Amino acid sequence: MTQSTTIRVAVAGAQGRMGREAIQAVTNAAQLQLAGALVHRPGHEADIPQTSVYTDPLRLLETEKPDVWLDLTTPESVVGHVDLAIEHGVYPVIGATGYQDADLERWQIATEKNDIGGLACPNFALGALLMMRFAREAAKWMQSAEIIELHHDQKKDKPSGTALRTAKQMETDYEIPIHSVRLPGLVAHQEVIFGGTGELLTIRHDSLNRESFMPGVVIACERVIRLRGMVYGLEQLLW
Amino acid sequence: MTQSTTIRVAVAGAQGRMGREAIQAVTNAAQLQLAGALVHRPGHEADIPQTSVYTDPLRLLETEKPDVWLDLTTPESVVGHVDLAIEHGVYPVIGATGYQDADLERWQIATEKNDIGGLACPNFALGALLMMRFAREAAKWMQSAEIIELHHDQKKDKPSGTALRTAKQMETDYEIPIHSVRLPGLVAHQEVIFGGTGELLTIRHDSLNRESFMPGVVIACERVIRLRGMVYGLEQLLW
Amino acid sequence: MTQSTTIRVAVAGAQGRMGREAIQAVTNAAQLQLAGALVHRPGHEADIPQTSVYTDPLRLLETEKPDVWLDLTTPESVVGHVDLAIEHGVYPVIGATGYQDADLERWQIATEKNDIGGLACPNFALGALLMMRFAREAAKWMQSAEIIELHHDQKKDKPSGTALRTAKQMETDYEIPIHSVRLPGLVAHQEVIFGGTGELLTIRHDSLNRESFMPGVVIACERVIRLRGMVYGLEQLLW
Amino acid sequence: MTQSTTIRVAVAGAQGRMGREAIQAVTNAAQLQLAGALVHRPGHEADIPQTSVYTDPLRLLETEKPDVWLDLTTPESVVGHVDLAIEHGVYPVIGATGYQDADLERWQIATEKNDIGGLACPNFALGALLMMRFAREAAKWMQSAEIIELHHDQKKDKPSGTALRTAKQMETDYEIPIHSVRLPGLVAHQEVIFGGTGELLTIRHDSLNRESFMPGVVIACERVIRLRGMVYGLEQLLW
Repeated sequence: MTQSTTIRVAVAGAQGRMGREAIQAVTNAAQLQLAGALVHRPGHEADIPQTSVYTDPLRLLETEKPDVWLDLTTPESVVGHVDLAIEHGVYPVIGATGYQDADLERWQIATEKNDIGGLACPNFALGALLMMRFAREAAKWMQSAEIIELHHDQKKDKPSGTALRTAKQMETDYEIPIHSVRLPGLVAHQEVIFGGTGELLTIRHDSLNRESFMPGVVIACERVIRLRGMVYGLEQLLW
Repeated sequence: MTQSTTIRVAVAGAQGRMGREAIQAVTNAAQLQLAGALVHRPGHEADIPQTSVYTDPLRLLETEKPDVWLDLTTPESVVGHVDLAIEHGVYPVIGATGYQDADLERWQIATEKNDIGGLACPNFALGALLMMRFAREAAKWMQSAEIIELHHDQKKDKPSGTALRTAKQMETDYEIPIHSVRLPGLVAHQEVIFGGTGELLTIRHDSLNRESFMPGVVIACERVIRLRGMVYGLEQLLW
Repeated sequence: MTQSTTIRVAVAGAQGRMGREAIQAVTNAAQLQLAGALVHRPGHEADIPQTSVYTDPLRLLETEKPDVWLDLTTPESVVGHVDLAIEHGVYPVIGATGYQDADLERWQIATEKNDIGGLACPNFALGALLMMRFAREAAKWMQSAEIIELHHDQKKDKPSGTALRTAKQMETDYEIPIHSVRLPGLVAHQEVIFGGTGELLTIRHDSLNRESFMPGVVIACERVIRLRGMVYGLEQLLW
Repeated sequence: MTQSTTIRVAVAGAQGRMGREAIQAVTNAAQLQLAGALVHRPGHEADIPQTSVYTDPLRLLETEKPDVWLDLTTPESVVGHVDLAIEHGVYPVIGATGYQDADLERWQIATEKNDIGGLACPNFALGALLMMRFAREAAKWMQSAEIIELHHDQKKDKPSGTALRTAKQMETDYEIPIHSVRLPGLVAHQEVIFGGTGELLTIRHDSLNRESFMPGVVIACERVIRLRGMVYGLEQLLW
């Protein structure tokens, strides 16, 4: 497959809010072509007129033979889907959460065996990835830091996964406090505040809607097919 | 005493950082005149050339006969000073902390008995007083809130007194979380974030140096002489 | 009409984004009842199953006899609609823009003559109204200020109407600079920054979606029926 | 000269606010030793008890034979000082402003000829340098940006030099608006706001006092002696 070939993408989780945005984004991307949609139960066909809609992942894989499997489903189904995709030689791009380290290790072996690649993306927003990157870099120079993440009051978990990943990447020898704000009116925001001698450096990301993930989704689908083995983090393909 | 008379102010705690600013502010204020300075031990005379310097509060009161006693000293000495000032018919303006409710009640009785007034000011910064006022008002209309206060990492206590007073004044039927950030590079900041349906309202105060207290100190000294009995909070004289 | 009676609201501009939110909000409000919807051309009936849909304002008024006319239409149609509503003794709540001072004056006379009230609301968001109120109050105490308003890059006009109204309400003897930021990713935000001696006070409003207007829309419809004559600004009914 | 040798630093502009901080910082730095201070007129000796004080740069250079010349003087004197220092084989670290490209070119030739190095530092604050670096990097990924710089109302020029350098480094194919806020209460702040699809990325630096420059001043003095030829920007030695 060369870079100029169109990449055929199956979207799993197509009935969800992320899924619907992704259907749109894949349809609009010059290098991508929508190869089919997976929904978790029948009845969503009318909402997704752009492509053939399936409820059985195996049938989708065998009928449509996509190049890439973009999985935006739930912790319950993502692992089974990705196992199946790799088995069929289809490159997975994983936006769902809930898989374990053991799953990643198995996928690593399986993709290498099938001579394909795969990409696990805990975050598709370019701005969020830049925030994490800058936080990691600034931590080398500034003597202390705190992370404040702010989300709508319907978000169940805290701290957010992004906050935990940011702190982990900062690799400081001091501990970084993480504070979680939960208020109606908030969407998804994070601030990393660095304190130094007489100065502050603040890196803030505001994600205002799911569209913010789409440029990253497109890049992930375009670039996964150049990989061999699993890569964790879209940022690995960016800088 | 009429409004056009110059008000003679004694500054207690004149060797401290607040005290030195206050000496300057009182000197520069048209309606005020510096009546003397109290330092906690000898040797600061050269630093305060503007006025006579005392180490004994009684001698200062009896010799200089000030109209107002501005107390910027420590929790250890403020109570004794204010008792003494009221006894001598001198209006106290209290910027120091560490007094108790019982002290305020005793001062209330003593000022009324001596037909004078007094003013206890946990915060002199006009911007901070406005922040608290707006937070109290917004709390009536917005459905939830959080206070984040941010101070330099040398600040020992948390949450700050201002954060506690803000939360108390908001009188909501929901609890207001207070989060404290401590980092080098910070000075003294507070943010009150209100979350509503699809919107946020944020009120933030940044205090960057002790000069921020001086307009409030001057107003307090000018207005205390119109009071009978003790007033708690400079804001009571403002709006 | 007593306060306990249900208020019947006609929504004009029901096919727009604000209109659809308002249909929902009126339907859900305990004291309000949806009396009909006006769309600017046929074909939106299926989208608004909650009520009868009209394209002719006169027919809506005569058939449904609403108590309140909530106008969320365009500069081209709002003036004609409101004239007609007042003529029929229906209380207008005006969320559309584009009317002139002369229109307001004519509506003032007409509502008084018909012994009804009306309400023109350039902004329904409670947080935005609080921001303007606090800015006006802070301007009395702080020596200088600047307004920064930030909107998505599709917004054509600048500065925003809210920024202009905020500056006007501040009634300072100094001029207040207004700066407009236009960037993709922004929704609708405004910051009023006050600078004083060694301190800053910032009041910020973030409006993240049209839902933020709905609590204000409901209050406006509930309270307009207690008015005689026109009132400009929902805030006039709040504090 | 090896890395373990103590580096002897002459501080020019020692009577200014930056200069006094630098005297302190050089005194406290393990690898540095204060070799003398230059003041622009006699009478500052008592303020700088740590070292010998000169008013004639030539005498300082010839008597103290410093390794590094840290110039924190004015546009009027910096060029002459640096010429003289290089002539004497002393490595210049230039914190003053007001020199021209032609000066930098002459210094380039002169340092190379004398087999020494030099460092011109328009900004010593590590947080500010990180902000500029991150802004440059983010500009490659985000589709639009604006710079807002905020300074106290005594600052004469606008936009600030840091804002201009930030914009220049961003090398975008779109123009980057720079907005300047001037208010009392502000110190020195800059925000670079990036707008993308449904997201924002903001990088903010707050410089609250001159101490913020000192870690950078110390690094500059320690590292300049490893250079050959002129380097523009402390960041060149950092990452």
